[in-house]
Amino acid sequence: MAAVQTRMEAALQRFLPAPEILPERLHRAMRYAVLGGGKRVRPLLAFAASELSAADPARVEVVAAAVEMIHAYSLVHDDMPCMDDDVLRRGRPTCHVEFDEATALLVGDALQPLAFQLMADHVLADKPDEQIEMLKILAVASGSRGMAGGQAIDLASVGKTLSLPELEFMHIHKTGALIRAATVLGARCGRGLEANGYERLERYAKTVGLAFQVVDDVLDCEASTATLGKTAGKDAAQSKPTYVSILGLARARELAEELRVEAHAALSSFDARAARLHELADFIVLRKF
Amino acid sequence: MAAVQTRMEAALQRFLPAPEILPERLHRAMRYAVLGGGKRVRPLLAFAASELSAADPARVEVVAAAVEMIHAYSLVHDDMPCMDDDVLRRGRPTCHVEFDEATALLVGDALQPLAFQLMADHVLADKPDEQIEMLKILAVASGSRGMAGGQAIDLASVGKTLSLPELEFMHIHKTGALIRAATVLGARCGRGLEANGYERLERYAKTVGLAFQVVDDVLDCEASTATLGKTAGKDAAQSKPTYVSILGLARARELAEELRVEAHAALSSFDARAARLHELADFIVLRKF
Repeated sequence: MAAVQTRMEAALQRFLPAPEILPERLHRAMRYAVLGGGKRVRPLLAFAASELSAADPARVEVVAAAVEMIHAYSLVHDDMPCMDDDVLRRGRPTCHVEFDEATALLVGDALQPLAFQLMADHVLADKPDEQIEMLKILAVASGSRGMAGGQAIDLASVGKTLSLPELEFMHIHKTGALIRAATVLGARCGRGLEANGYERLERYAKTVGLAFQVVDDVLDCEASTATLGKTAGKDAAQSKPTYVSILGLARARELAEELRVEAHAALSSFDARAARLHELADFIVLRKF
Repeated sequence: MAAVQTRMEAALQRFLPAPEILPERLHRAMRYAVLGGGKRVRPLLAFAASELSAADPARVEVVAAAVEMIHAYSLVHDDMPCMDDDVLRRGRPTCHVEFDEATALLVGDALQPLAFQLMADHVLADKPDEQIEMLKILAVASGSRGMAGGQAIDLASVGKTLSLPELEFMHIHKTGALIRAATVLGARCGRGLEANGYERLERYAKTVGLAFQVVDDVLDCEASTATLGKTAGKDAAQSKPTYVSILGLARARELAEELRVEAHAALSSFDARAARLHELADFIVLRKF
């Protein structure tokens, strides 16, 4: 994991415009938003899934960076005053606090096309039409039926009592879509998977994505701001429905454990090439930050 | 022109998610931002340029819609309180006024990947690797070295005295990048242009893009809010440098005319297939709104 994280940090450094290129302030703010932090869960999933198809790491690095740029932009916009209005992220001031609101808006607006540019600028598949399909996967996962749509459902849910299926529907879009895209795109960088392979991989990614969110809610309730690197207890303060508010802390912990077991089960028909994916399911559920 | 505008309205209607699809409010807001107005200058340029290469209009419609989604998102974000803080656009309340700020933010965030999704979802070139090249053109034009970068330069220029070259540099990015992309992508939908064809076409588009901006500044100074459908005199009120503030009204009018002549000259080596491009250069400079 540390090797992937180090590799990703270097790749993101390289793929982001240099801070001395015009417009300098925007480029500095883009680098601030993307570099120097984050668990890089999506890149870890992309690299782990790429082992299923023996993909070239140089390709995986590109799709992982593209997904991470989309993820980073979503955090910048999500932290803005008109959304969650948060001042702390990854232990540092959020982008609009460190720079200003207008710059934060543009950082997100510019990171998004950079993700698609990266995926158009490198050879990622043996056939160009497969690469176009990969670009489409990222676009759909980022859009109104994916991540951005999940944010909209999240917005509409503030102060409301959601049912468990409604909460799940929100997270399957808000964080799940990009987690699934990262996993599938990692595998697609190599030779194709066997019949139903992508289907099973998507089931794994969907389960792991939900587990990630359940654990996030548990940690948000349990941990301190210092440990998390972002404001703790925020969801409760904003009366946002969470797994903990709906299920209670004990049952939420149980659910995370059930999802962990389910994620492992989804991988059962893959051979030893799925070892990293198994490890990540454990990491995502058992993490403390 | 009216035929292209009608065709585009229908295409955009079709390409946007239906308002009854979840998340409904976001989809309604996306449709509000894109439909029902606008001169559709970029689609007009794409269709006009596509005549140079005898491109299939069904392809041109897709790239024109993609560019128009990027343009529409940029207007939504540009109008937000942390940017230009404007309440009127195309004669109607701006998106964040009609809906709310968070929704306006997400409208822009979701329109952008929809543009790339469209371009990945349709066959736009005879060879898939040409289509990937076209996706890259749109990504670069939208990003920090294109439109979003131009916005950042614009932000940094408020209250400053710019030189004419600095103002030109800003507009070549802020509005020019997408106008050039629309034109080049329209031509790329067909069989390739002759040697230097794209270069000459880009020169035309760059000139027309600047002329568009000069005329915008002249109209902003001369016309009423009712005629423009957006707040008139805004640039002066926000102490934004404009062609009129730097050159004066009479010289700005002359410059627009010079650019119109230059745009026609850039087309000189094309044959009758460039007729629509010639017409558009006239329309852009001689328009009254």
